[in-house]
Amino acid sequence: MKNITVLVPLACGFEEIEAVTIIDVLRRAKIEVLVASLDGESFVKGVHGITIQTDVQLKDVNADMLDMIALPGGWIGTKTLAADENIKTLLKEMDAKGKEIGAICAAPYVLEKAGVLKDKYTCYPSVEEDIKRAGYQDAPMVVEDANIMTSRGPATAICFALAIVKKLQGKEKYEAIKAGLLAEHC
Amino acid sequence: MKNITVLVPLACGFEEIEAVTIIDVLRRAKIEVLVASLDGESFVKGVHGITIQTDVQLKDVNADMLDMIALPGGWIGTKTLAADENIKTLLKEMDAKGKEIGAICAAPYVLEKAGVLKDKYTCYPSVEEDIKRAGYQDAPMVVEDANIMTSRGPATAICFALAIVKKLQGKEKYEAIKAGLLAEHC
Repeated sequence: MKNITVLVPLACGFEEIEAVTIIDVLRRAKIEVLVASLDGESFVKGVHGITIQTDVQLKDVNADMLDMIALPGGWIGTKTLAADENIKTLLKEMDAKGKEIGAICAAPYVLEKAGVLKDKYTCYPSVEEDIKRAGYQDAPMVVEDANIMTSRGPATAICFALAIVKKLQGKEKYEAIKAGLLAEHC
Repeated sequence: MKNITVLVPLACGFEEIEAVTIIDVLRRAKIEVLVASLDGESFVKGVHGITIQTDVQLKDVNADMLDMIALPGGWIGTKTLAADENIKTLLKEMDAKGKEIGAICAAPYVLEKAGVLKDKYTCYPSVEEDIKRAGYQDAPMVVEDANIMTSRGPATAICFALAIVKKLQGKEKYEAIKAGLLAEHC
C-alpha cells in the first residue's frame, strides 16, 4: 500500500493546539506527516511560546511527494504563510493537480490569498471579514468543498483532523481513531 | 497580583495533544506554565514523534514555586513519570501543602503510585484496571475530588485545561478563554 503523505508547514506564531492535533491524529492513522519549516530552521515557536521540532524544510518538498497540505491557524503564523511565495506556489500546484488542501482557524485566509479557496468555507469567526469573500459558513465544525477542507479553531481541531483521516484513509480507520481519542462529539 | 505557576513535566512518550493543550490553554489565561524535562535534556519527544522544547529541568523546581502540577498522559511517558522518585516526592509535597494536582488519560496512574489520588477519579478507559482502585468514574470529562483533578483522554484535554483555568483564575476568565477556543462542548 502506498504511503499517504501530508505536509504541515509551521511559521513562527502558529497555533499550537491546531498544529499538534493535526500531526498527532494523522500519525495515529498511519499517515506520514512532514512537519516543515519555511526558512531552514529546525525549530519553530508557536504563538503561546511552545517550540516544536520540524522534520523537513519547505524547499525540499514538492507537490508530487504529497497527498495533502494542511495549515494550522494562529494569526501571526497565518500572515507569514500568506506572504510566503513558496507556500502560495505549492498550494496552486496542489490545487491544479486536484490534491487535498486543508486549513483551520485563520489559515483559510492563506488559501484565499493563493486563489485556491472554493465557494463554501469556514474559518475562525471574524476572519471571514479579512477573507472578504462570500460563502462563509458559521455552523459546521468542518466544511468540505471539492478538494478544500476548512475548520474553525482550537476546539474543532480534533474533528477537523478526523475528517482528514476519513477522507484519506476511509470510514473504518476514522471510526477507530475517533474511538481511541474519545472524540464522541465529532 | 501574584503570578500563578503550573508545572507540566514531560517524559519521553508523553501524549502530545494533551500536553500542548494544557500548556496553550493555561497560557491563554495568563498562567505561567513551566514545561520541565526530567533529565536535563532541553527537548522531549512525544509518543507520536513530536519533539517539544522544555523551559526548565525538574531538579530546579520545588513545591513552594508552584500552584499546581498537571500531568499529560501517554502510556510510555506515564510509566516513566511513575518510576521517577523526584516526581513522586514533588507530588507528595504538593499534596501535603494542599496544592492543586491534575492528571489526564493514563497519568492518574502516576498519582496512585505517588499515593495522592483521592476517592473519586477518572482516567483513560482501561487504565482503571492498572490503577486497581475503587472510585473510577466513567461519565464526566473532568472529575474533581479535593485538590485532585483528573480527566480522560485527548478529546477531553481542552475541557480539562479549561477546568484548571476555572479553578485557578475563576469563572470570568474561564468563560472568556472557552469562548476564544470555540469550546462550546465543555
